[in-house]
This record gives sequence, C-alpha cells and structure tokens, in this order.
Amino acid sequence: MVINLFEACERIWTNVNLATITPLATNPYGRLSNQALGVRQGRIAAIAPMAELAHVQLLGEVIDCKNGWMTPGLIDAHSHLVFAGNRAHEFEQRLLGVTYEDIACQGGGILSTVKATRQASIEELVNLSEPRLKALMAEGVTTIEIKSGYGLSVESELKMLRAAKSLAERNPVRVSTSLLGAHALPPEYQGNSNSYIDLVCNELIPAAVQEDLVDAVDVFCEGIAFTPEQCERVFQAAKVHGLGVKAHVEQLSNLHGAELAARYNAWSVDHIEWLDEAGAKAVAESGTVATLLPGAFYFLRETKVPPIELIRKHGIPIAIATDLNPGSSPLASLRLAMNMACTLFHLTPEESLAGVTSNAARALGLGSKLGRLEVGMRADMILWDIDTPAELSYQFGVNPIKQRIFNGEVSNVWD
Amino acid sequence: MVINLFEACERIWTNVNLATITPLATNPYGRLSNQALGVRQGRIAAIAPMAELAHVQLLGEVIDCKNGWMTPGLIDAHSHLVFAGNRAHEFEQRLLGVTYEDIACQGGGILSTVKATRQASIEELVNLSEPRLKALMAEGVTTIEIKSGYGLSVESELKMLRAAKSLAERNPVRVSTSLLGAHALPPEYQGNSNSYIDLVCNELIPAAVQEDLVDAVDVFCEGIAFTPEQCERVFQAAKVHGLGVKAHVEQLSNLHGAELAARYNAWSVDHIEWLDEAGAKAVAESGTVATLLPGAFYFLRETKVPPIELIRKHGIPIAIATDLNPGSSPLASLRLAMNMACTLFHLTPEESLAGVTSNAARALGLGSKLGRLEVGMRADMILWDIDTPAELSYQFGVNPIKQRIFNGEVSNVWD
Ligand SMILES: [Zn+2]
Ligand SMILES: [Zn+2]
Repeated sequence: MVINLFEACERIWTNVNLATITPLATNPYGRLSNQALGVRQGRIAAIAPMAELAHVQLLGEVIDCKNGWMTPGLIDAHSHLVFAGNRAHEFEQRLLGVTYEDIACQGGGILSTVKATRQASIEELVNLSEPRLKALMAEGVTTIEIKSGYGLSVESELKMLRAAKSLAERNPVRVSTSLLGAHALPPEYQGNSNSYIDLVCNELIPAAVQEDLVDAVDVFCEGIAFTPEQCERVFQAAKVHGLGVKAHVEQLSNLHGAELAARYNAWSVDHIEWLDEAGAKAVAESGTVATLLPGAFYFLRETKVPPIELIRKHGIPIAIATDLNPGSSPLASLRLAMNMACTLFHLTPEESLAGVTSNAARALGLGSKLGRLEVGMRADMILWDIDTPAELSYQFGVNPIKQRIFNGEVSNVWD
Repeated sequence: MVINLFEACERIWTNVNLATITPLATNPYGRLSNQALGVRQGRIAAIAPMAELAHVQLLGEVIDCKNGWMTPGLIDAHSHLVFAGNRAHEFEQRLLGVTYEDIACQGGGILSTVKATRQASIEELVNLSEPRLKALMAEGVTTIEIKSGYGLSVESELKMLRAAKSLAERNPVRVSTSLLGAHALPPEYQGNSNSYIDLVCNELIPAAVQEDLVDAVDVFCEGIAFTPEQCERVFQAAKVHGLGVKAHVEQLSNLHGAELAARYNAWSVDHIEWLDEAGAKAVAESGTVATLLPGAFYFLRETKVPPIELIRKHGIPIAIATDLNPGSSPLASLRLAMNMACTLFHLTPEESLAGVTSNAARALGLGSKLGRLEVGMRADMILWDIDTPAELSYQFGVNPIKQRIFNGEVSNVWD
C-alpha cells in the first residue's frame, strides 16, 4: 500500500528527517527520522520510513535530502504587509527626543501611513510591498496573512485587499486576507466613531465580501482604538457574512476583548500581553489560537510579557507572527520573531516552530489544510540545512534554507 | 583641479547622496547631496558636487546612482565568528528549564565550543564560519574583526587566527584579528589561572606575532573570567610586541577594567554596561572607543543598559558590533545590531551608523584608512536603495543594498 502511494507521486524527497508538527506525536517536533515523503497534485500523498522503500522503484522525480530536515512551510499569521509611506524619519525623531504628541502634530503616526496608503495606486502598493513579501518568502514563508487597515475608507480598504490578492497572484505564496477596517478612526470621522463602525459593518464588509476579497475580519480593541461594543458589532457583521473573526486585544490594557472574541469563536486573539485567567479560559474553550507578536513588544520596548504559563496551563495553541507594520514592528522576518518568542517570551523552540506552522494555520482557519507534514495536507514544505529544528529559533542572520517547496513544486525564490 | 582628479579615476559614481560620516560635518550623517565620487587604485580619489562636473568628460566607468545613498562599507568591530560546534541544543535545554549548572555538567557552555573548535581542522573551521561571514557581507559588511578565544592552547588559538586569515584571502572583505587567549580558563589549567596567563603572554602572543597573525590582543576582564591584574599582564605583553589592545569589560559587574584598558591606550572597551563616571573619564582621555554589543544584551535578557548619557557627556566615540558568538549572541547580522542599538539602547540612527563605520574603524585602529567617505580613504562603500540613512537602523528583514563596493571594485556577494 505504501508502495502504491509512492508510485503515484510526482516527486519524492528521500533520506529526510521530518518535523511533522503533528499534535499526536509523542516525540519533540513530531519527528520522524529517515523518511521518504511523496507529493501528488500539490498535496502530500505518502510518508514512510526509508526502510520500507528498499525494493520499490520510484517513478517520480527523486530528491535526496542527505539526512536534512524538512518542516512545513512557515506561516506568518499576522501582518500589515501592504502599506505605503516611510516612517524611518519618525523613528529617528523619537530617538532624538521629539515627543509622540509633536510627531502627531507634524502629521506622523498611523495617520501618516493612512495618508500615503490612500494616495498610492494599487500598482504602487504592490511594488512597495513586494520586497517585504519576498524577504519573508526567502526565509521560508509559504503562507501569509495580510490585513487592510490603513485605508479606513471603503475604496481604500478594498484597494489594500486587492493589492494583497495581486501579491498572491504574482508570487508562489498563499495569502489569507483580513479586513481590519476597525484599526483606527479616520480623520474625517473624529468624534464620530460609531458612524465609522456603521460604515465598516454596513458598507465595507459587504463590499469586500461581494468582491471575494476577504477571509476574516479583524479589530483593534483598545482604549486608543475601538470599544468592545464597537468590536462586537463588527464581529456580528462578520458572522452574517460567514467570515472568520480575529482580534487585536489586551495589548496595552485589559478590556476583556479576548472573552468577547471567544464568544464569536474567533480564529485568533492577537498580542494578549494583558490576558487574564477568565480570558484564557474563554479562549481555551472556544478553540481560539493565541497569536503572540514579540516584534511589537520589542520595538515598543514593552515590559509586560504575555502570560505564557497561563496560556500553557489552559492548553491554548500559540501562534507567533511578525505583526510586520511601519509603526510598531518594521521587522520583515518571521525567523527573527521566532527568536524573539524564545528570547523575550521564553517559549521553547518547539513551541516557536509550532507557532509558525500548525498553530499559525489554525489562526487562519486553515488548520486542516496547512501547517503539518501529514498525508492529505497541501505540500508546502521547507528543506533545511540544520542539525536540529531548535536552530531555526536559535541562530539568526544565516539562512539555512536549502529548498522551498510550494504546492509540491520547488520554488527557491531567493535565486 | 576637481576635474583633473576625476579624469584619473577608474570608476565614478554619479548623482549620489553621500553619508560621509565625517566628524567635521555640521549636517546629520555628514550628508553631501547630489555628488560624484571617483576611485583610483582602491582609494577614494575625488568627491565633488555634480554641478562642478557639468562640462567634464569622465574617462572612467560611470555608475549613475539615480539619487541613491552611499555610505562607507559597514564594519563589524567585535566578532567571535570563527568557531565549531552547535549550541542550539543548549539554547533549547535552557528554555526547557534545565539549569546552567546542569548544562555545564553535561559538557555545555563555552567549553563545548572550545572542545569542538580544538577538534576541528582549519578547513573545517573555515567552512563552518564562511556562511556567517557571507551573511554579514551580504548586508554590507566590508571589514570585520575576528577574535580567537575558543582554542585556549597555543596551537588551537593560532589555528583560529589562521582560519580568520584564510577567510580574508577567500573573500572580498578585510579581516582584523584579535588574540583573545584570555577568554576563559581552559580545563587543563583549572585552579591555575596565573600559569595560563603566563602561557598567553610568554608563548601564545609571541608565536602569533612571529607568524604575523594578529593585530591586537583582547581580554575578558570579569569575575567569571580573568582579574584586572591578569589582564594587565596581557596588555603589557601586547605593548612589548606593538599590538593594539581591546578588552571585554564591565559587562556583568564593574571591575574597573575600562580604566585599566585606557591606561594602555586601548583601541576599544567593549560591552561596558556597568561603566562608571571614573571609567568614562579615563576612556575619553585615552581616545578609546566604547563598543556596544546589544545582541548579547538582548540574548542574555540583560536589564542593565550601558550608560549612554555618560558616554555622550564625555564625548566617547561609540561603535556597535554583533559580538557574533554561539553562546551569548548567535546573531549574524550587523543591521540587527544597529536596530537593537536604537531600540534597546536608545541610540539615534546617526550614532548607530557612525557606530558601524567611522567609530568601528577607530575601534580597530584603522580610523585613518576606513569608515568615512573622504578623499584618501580606502574605497569600501555601499550603495543603498533608501530615502534616508535612518532606514538602515529602522527597518529590518528587507535588505536595501544595491551595490557593495570593496576596494573600489563592485563586489555584490549575494549574487
Ligand atoms: Zn497588528
Ligand atoms: Zn565578545
């Protein structure tokens, strides 16, 4: 039976150690040593120990991995990759001692990104964003979530989502899109935030669904952004349209956004530095993923570490993402986020790798299709020149990637 | 006169913004806008505004920079790049809760790197280290300091330095070597550290000088390493042989190593989290560079930030380096170190760039030859696709390098 499966494979990787990341495994990383893995029509079709292939003639293309390691393709489950403008000057001003208030008065902060993004054409957005995407892909990313949230008008939000879709068409990468209309209050709605939420629920979400641009909605539930009540209205609209739910919650304070999101069976709650026991319980019961964003924690010099022990205690799956954005995490590197998750949040390298594979897939509602090396899964995989998967979280700067496989095809984007 | 200089140039970069990093400049980064820069025989031979070239026929190769930015080549003034062995497993063990003591009992810690480095051949050392070097070069590094310190015997220390020299021969990069015999006490000298210092001073340093393998000596002055008295003996031996002096001091405590190093006119004092006012004064008077290593601060989760205001107050030149090493800074990225210097130590982007160019050159005793865009300097330069030099410290992951120029020749190592 194993033999038959391999015979039908178009491509077979041999002599490979698999970090399957299967939750059923008893050994670290779901390790299977000295295996063969075959793909057919973009999916993993067969996995078996090399010993079982001893007398089998393989008809497909055979790639000898020489005892290297293979993991699922990396998944960045939280990014604001599409934007225009450059906030390096603002970064410099802050370090020269200029206050946040003065920067805001000079037109800086998130609204400067909104202004530049609104002014950019879709082609400009794609061209500005593609180098960031390619940097992530060169590190091993095969799926990325991209949020809107710098348009803050129906037309500009749709433009951002169209740019994200265009990036997916132009590159060997899967893109999951989230509509983050409720990211910040646009200037033209100052003092009128409920009307803006009306726009998001009644016009923006339906228009995005109509054009098939969006997989989930997202909100920023925080004192400086939107109230839990406003976020709930967005979640209700999402449910009406059959969209997934994600939420930026408990980053700077505890508004109990996690419990709210859990009531709507959110795919993920993100940031959660201030998550408490009640929130953790609700998140665990709803099967929601906790997405940690150590890049923003680092860049904002925060000191409140997410409650890792609480999250572990309740068995909440942990994802790790870049939060790539120009204001609070200009770090286009998922491997750096993995290192930061270990160094700053004390996650283990195994949690870190699961956080950018199986749990990241769950955070995008794609847990049954992506993120593990199992028969039936999409064949997005990375072959690494490493001795142990811990190296992916430990060392930084050297990129140990040997082969990037997207949908069963070798796709070495760094060539 | 300007015209004549350009006529003799082999290669001229035109329409370029120069971050000269000259200390005499009054504008940030020593900026000169819309310039031409010509090289001859590996040196910068001419710099002039484009306007002055209006009627000049340029005979050399002309490279139109289209208003891009050029900086000096980046200099990593503190690295332990050459080593064998892999400490990812130890990293993982620590995060799984295993204590330092237990790791040491299992043969982990620095002595595991010493063991692996002693066992490696020079070819193995070169092959293991070259990917780290290439990663740094691809980011824009044109000069790197490499220390010994994992051999801890005459033959193994010389082997490390020979490997560093071999890396320089095989790659378009300058290597400055430091003999760090006084890095840790080798196991065979336990309880007998003065005898080991005898070996360093009386056998190791003379042998390294004899073979022309070394530019400076370095020491680790700390409770867990060597006493100030022992370090002073090493400095005395360095002076006898006309070598530069560098020192790891004030990282975990204040043993007044900086004052000691300053008395020997050290090129640099490195780490210096615990530097005090007396130390800063001595360092300032000796013209010694303060080399900050934010990667180790980050990786060790330290909380004691170097006294930046004190260093600024005394006008001490600041260098920034990777400290690339397997134990406390496995981060082969100088641009990440620049970001960390700003984010974790609150340096400005201008201080950060000077820290990897002009001040890094001074930290290697090369301040008159490297690190600034001035006529007469070695033509090691980077052409960047950036709007402002602040981007080099701000954004991370995307590599905005357009051209790497080594000794006047285009040398794009990432091709
Ligand atoms: Zn976000
Ligand atoms: Zn060091």
